Amino acid sequence: MKKLINHVDTVLAESLDGFATAHADIVVLGPEREFVRRRTVVPGKVALISGGGSGHEPLHAGFIGHGMLDAACAGQIFTSPTPNQMLAAAEAVNTGAGVLFIVKNYSGDMMNFSMAAEMLDVENATIIVNDDVAVENSTYTTGRRGVAGTLIVEKIVGAAAQRGDKLAQLKALGDAVNKATASMGVALTSCTVPAAGKPTFQIGPDEMEMGVGIHGEPGRRRVKLGTADEIAAELTGAVLKDLNLPRGQEVILLVNGFGGTPNLELYVMVNAAMKILNAAGVKVVRHLTGSYVTSLEMAGCSITVTAVDDAMLKLWDAPVHTAALRWGI
Amino acid sequence: MKKLINHVDTVLAESLDGFATAHADIVVLGPEREFVRRRTVVPGKVALISGGGSGHEPLHAGFIGHGMLDAACAGQIFTSPTPNQMLAAAEAVNTGAGVLFIVKNYSGDMMNFSMAAEMLDVENATIIVNDDVAVENSTYTTGRRGVAGTLIVEKIVGAAAQRGDKLAQLKALGDAVNKATASMGVALTSCTVPAAGKPTFQIGPDEMEMGVGIHGEPGRRRVKLGTADEIAAELTGAVLKDLNLPRGQEVILLVNGFGGTPNLELYVMVNAAMKILNAAGVKVVRHLTGSYVTSLEMAGCSITVTAVDDAMLKLWDAPVHTAALRWGI
Repeated sequence: MKKLINHVDTVLAESLDGFATAHADIVVLGPEREFVRRRTVVPGKVALISGGGSGHEPLHAGFIGHGMLDAACAGQIFTSPTPNQMLAAAEAVNTGAGVLFIVKNYSGDMMNFSMAAEMLDVENATIIVNDDVAVENSTYTTGRRGVAGTLIVEKIVGAAAQRGDKLAQLKALGDAVNKATASMGVALTSCTVPAAGKPTFQIGPDEMEMGVGIHGEPGRRRVKLGTADEIAAELTGAVLKDLNLPRGQEVILLVNGFGGTPNLELYVMVNAAMKILNAAGVKVVRHLTGSYVTSLEMAGCSITVTAVDDAMLKLWDAPVHTAALRWGI
Repeated sequence: MKKLINHVDTVLAESLDGFATAHADIVVLGPEREFVRRRTVVPGKVALISGGGSGHEPLHAGFIGHGMLDAACAGQIFTSPTPNQMLAAAEAVNTGAGVLFIVKNYSGDMMNFSMAAEMLDVENATIIVNDDVAVENSTYTTGRRGVAGTLIVEKIVGAAAQRGDKLAQLKALGDAVNKATASMGVALTSCTVPAAGKPTFQIGPDEMEMGVGIHGEPGRRRVKLGTADEIAAELTGAVLKDLNLPRGQEVILLVNGFGGTPNLELYVMVNAAMKILNAAGVKVVRHLTGSYVTSLEMAGCSITVTAVDDAMLKLWDAPVHTAALRWGI
């Protein structure tokens, strides 16, 4: 296992410390590293809290700040954070307007955020993200998995919270964005969880995992390595089939790297995906390309499409100032 | 070779097309993809042009836009662009205030930018970046190599050009920033150039290349895999030895991933580097962490330190709007 770490037991703590140091203008690390929170909370604003297993950076802590999340709870790598972490985060950033959890649909996260929601003695709601169209149930999931679309939900709902929308509105908006979002990914290589010390799965030199999850869990099928055009056709095709968009529909396109894929290849995938989207008459009005929802150093990518109306697009464009996403400010 | 591509002969063209599509609000692709230029040039502003071999994305095209570059010329992967590309770029973005080339010190780039400078019939100057302290001469270099520090030179000089500084001032500023900047990197794995189809170098499962260049070329020595703390001590130590900074000196710290290293590990390296910098009494006033100057999918990172005065810091903080670096706008 080749990693820039000191020890498998300290990698998360040291990474969080480095993150908090590098972004001290935006975030503060909570006691015992239970959460990362926004340095300055906004009184009267609904508190947006997300979290999940680590290994998907910059998700979620990289999306804390103006116009996005107020706090994020980091579990160990590919392991849910605990309800206590979520309660501690809620206590730190709730200013009386309620708490909104944004949760990727994985069994561990669902159970722990649900427990936290029950124990929380302030008004709260939960948005469940399940944008992955690859498989209906999966290794760690009942129903569809929550993957890169989470970033789009967090951005749009975050902007609405920043302008002062109330809890019920934000919950409804988040559910709507989730419903308008579909993703699917492909892996060319496995990732290696530090504590495991060996690749999560074996894959041949001429194989790829189509529909892979963000922990390297199995997708639809193991197939021979394809070209960028073939991969984009299958990923984008599955996404479009799920969304069933009318011609002329405006969308955001997110081509997301899994951590080990260079930008050079991600832009080849943008080019390939655009051919499919153009042919389908879908109008890409905003692009985001980069490694935002990762699986450690896994090579591969996912394609996410979100159908947007003018209101959602305005929220997408609203100023954001986080470690990983920043514009207008 | 596992890559998200269609064909080795078309990867660069398709990637540039995808890049230009995704960032059409900022850039335009020149005829025959000879260069990428800023969509809107600013009359009376010195034109900043950089470029080099591809495979280092987001360098350089990702740094085109307000407050940074006006154009970038992309050569084939790890191959210099031609003088004709630079001349075409200069013609497209020069508005009469002269042209400033920013060139990484590699023999091919130096020769071709130098030829372009001679052929150019407008006032011009060249900043040569040679921030890599690992080795004095190298596979493709006479003198030190130009690596991740290039981004810092481009940001600071770009901001000065944006505010209207003249060519001679910009040349002097760029030389000063280069002199105040030092970098060194380590590779855990090789990269694979698509046209070669196999790894650039062989490296054992317990080895790393200390002082590697951004094309995977040899560095100082091949050593046993070390911990993050040991690696940070050697990289940061070499950088600090070169810069010989007084205690209390303010610096920018760039921890740069080479393309195959996840953010989780880069922040472990930030944490490790900070221990060395704090012990040396150096004051890190700005951080940048991410994969900005890459070597395709190589795993590893580099550490760059730039000593800044108030004027340089103000230029670093000035608004920038490019594909890969954006703030204040």
